[in-house]
Amino acid sequence: MAEEPVNKPTTNEDDDFVDPWTVAGKSETGIDYDKLIKRFGSQKIDEEVIQRFEKVTGKKAHHFLRRGIFFSHRDIHTILNLYEAGKKFYLYTGRGPSSESMHIGHMIPFMFTKWLQDVFDVPLIIQLTDDEKVLWRDLKIEDARQMAFNNAKDIIAVGFDVEKTFIFNDLDFIGKCPAFYQNMVRIQKCVTYNQVKGIFGFGDSDVIGKITFPSIEAAPAFSTSFPFIFENKVLPCLVPCAIDQDPYFRMTRDVAARLKLPKPSLIHSTFLPALQGAQHKMSASDANASIFLNDSAKHIKTKINKYAFSGGQTTVEEHRLKGGNTDVDISYKYLSFFLEDDDRLAEIKKEYESGVMLTGELKKEAIDVITPWIQEYQKRRAAVTDEVVEQFFKLRPLKF
Amino acid sequence: MAEEPVNKPTTNEDDDFVDPWTVAGKSETGIDYDKLIKRFGSQKIDEEVIQRFEKVTGKKAHHFLRRGIFFSHRDIHTILNLYEAGKKFYLYTGRGPSSESMHIGHMIPFMFTKWLQDVFDVPLIIQLTDDEKVLWRDLKIEDARQMAFNNAKDIIAVGFDVEKTFIFNDLDFIGKCPAFYQNMVRIQKCVTYNQVKGIFGFGDSDVIGKITFPSIEAAPAFSTSFPFIFENKVLPCLVPCAIDQDPYFRMTRDVAARLKLPKPSLIHSTFLPALQGAQHKMSASDANASIFLNDSAKHIKTKINKYAFSGGQTTVEEHRLKGGNTDVDISYKYLSFFLEDDDRLAEIKKEYESGVMLTGELKKEAIDVITPWIQEYQKRRAAVTDEVVEQFFKLRPLKF
Repeated sequence: MAEEPVNKPTTNEDDDFVDPWTVAGKSETGIDYDKLIKRFGSQKIDEEVIQRFEKVTGKKAHHFLRRGIFFSHRDIHTILNLYEAGKKFYLYTGRGPSSESMHIGHMIPFMFTKWLQDVFDVPLIIQLTDDEKVLWRDLKIEDARQMAFNNAKDIIAVGFDVEKTFIFNDLDFIGKCPAFYQNMVRIQKCVTYNQVKGIFGFGDSDVIGKITFPSIEAAPAFSTSFPFIFENKVLPCLVPCAIDQDPYFRMTRDVAARLKLPKPSLIHSTFLPALQGAQHKMSASDANASIFLNDSAKHIKTKINKYAFSGGQTTVEEHRLKGGNTDVDISYKYLSFFLEDDDRLAEIKKEYESGVMLTGELKKEAIDVITPWIQEYQKRRAAVTDEVVEQFFKLRPLKF
Repeated sequence: MAEEPVNKPTTNEDDDFVDPWTVAGKSETGIDYDKLIKRFGSQKIDEEVIQRFEKVTGKKAHHFLRRGIFFSHRDIHTILNLYEAGKKFYLYTGRGPSSESMHIGHMIPFMFTKWLQDVFDVPLIIQLTDDEKVLWRDLKIEDARQMAFNNAKDIIAVGFDVEKTFIFNDLDFIGKCPAFYQNMVRIQKCVTYNQVKGIFGFGDSDVIGKITFPSIEAAPAFSTSFPFIFENKVLPCLVPCAIDQDPYFRMTRDVAARLKLPKPSLIHSTFLPALQGAQHKMSASDANASIFLNDSAKHIKTKINKYAFSGGQTTVEEHRLKGGNTDVDISYKYLSFFLEDDDRLAEIKKEYESGVMLTGELKKEAIDVITPWIQEYQKRRAAVTDEVVEQFFKLRPLKF
């Protein structure tokens, strides 16, 4: 029996809506993540967890941890205990590729995953679910594969270590690894239609590919799916991902118990909000809501100045008097993701909330942090050739 | 739009039950195949079809055709027209492997498939659905693969030409052929849960592997699933199979239309009845109901004498007077499958029905036909080594 419910948490009318396909908050301050933790049944990353992270790794916690951007977990202590005992585990994350350029919101889990890889010195597996995109969208196999290949370049440019990272797209890889398909079948045998209906909200008119897809996102959480990397060793897995992917891993953890394999541990991120406000996450399908990784400095400046929702007051006089609201201000939120300097961030918060800093000045702070970050990224991205991608995609042992 | 309904035919209380998992006739004369043709919406193989077979191929029709053992088809004329025009097609059949030895009933579609391969000189693909067995039974992946490998030997011993035949088991092959998985996804995108519920009777508590399995039996009907054989040529396909597999191909034909690929043609066999009577097909799970391919001469003799349901009368006197009933007599039915000599079969029928031939004598006729057939088969089977199997399983171009 599973110790956790695999059913979809009940959603009340005034709850934020979060599933793998839709994120819609009810408040202009964004998703109520504490409430989400309760509904999903995960654990909060509190001060104690952060301190244990620092103690075990001997490194300062990433600012995503310090600032609650990675805010929730399942069994992270299992992983920290393993690391402390000098035992091995691996990281698994992924992405549903899209035709558009990736945006800065997509980078959050990958930036943190790279930090985890560096800190723990462990192998990393990145799945690109191009098959999912074919099933959910009006998209041809060939186009989905190309999208996966292009997105892989964007991901590699985050700076992953080729000796410790394997990237694959389902439409090519599943036909190259019998052990992976065999694990898919093992998983598919443990999960009923009723269960995926409950967890993902699938309906009777959904195509059978969607209904079975969760087994494909689950399979990489078991090391036995990758004999060329792990031989047949059973290694525990840590999945860093945005909280909307949690339903897949609630299911996977239930399956793991039935297959007598280690349950994957999870560490969940919040969403980078859209320019227009924190109710919605940044979305590639809305160009005006997103800052893309291939945007120019001019684009970035224009978008933030024009679209970034402001927590400031309507007149300068009123602003000087009342101060701005960092709980809803998008420029401030972006700074909390991209400005690593805690002291400077605290200073900005204080100045903005007291009315010393005006909205235009806060926007400039955000532009001045994001622009060089993207420019550095674009330099790395330019160096990712087809040959580099092939190295990451090659079925091979990883260093660990 | 599909020109054929993909829904499951409605079944009345007094109809025979026939689906891929259960065959249960209502009458001791066995399944009413004419009624099945009407319910399934297929075409009867009548005298005209047989004559066209003979005209196009220049060969005498196989006795399975002449005697209504292969009794039904879908679009067989498409295939005959192609052959007449000197164009290419291929054959596809399969089997769900079992741990028990295969029995003579399993041989019927394969014997006919071999004849089709010889007559048309075309490539043949044989799928062993070991994944299906894992999903439907309490069976481990490793055991299912071994069963597939053993069953492959039984099938190869029918006499298939290694230069024109590719055999695969899903659990190994799907992880070796990206084009096959890509076609699975294309198919999975065209079929809803409602449809497989209608066609196969799946329910909400069925595991998701079962729900998606029909896409795996459908994929080999498209030549693009096997680029190593057909490059990327789109070739039509003829599927010889027992009528209980028709639901898979009703679905496949519907999908083919949507994917703009040729609909597979079909040619359907009746079932070889169980020893106990024609209501049931021979089943490997009941040793006393079946003549296995590894039975000794003594086994065969004992089983037929002891279990073969008789159409004879209760006393010799009554039998001499009224004669036997070949419509229900299992020994006679087996002769109609295995005795190729039409004249001799007609003679036996006449003698038995007139009371000249007694049940014991009819049983001896059956024993004397089946025993040497199995002994010849066993000689061929003994020659099928692991190396031979490997040749059939090797991904390679076929001669055609």
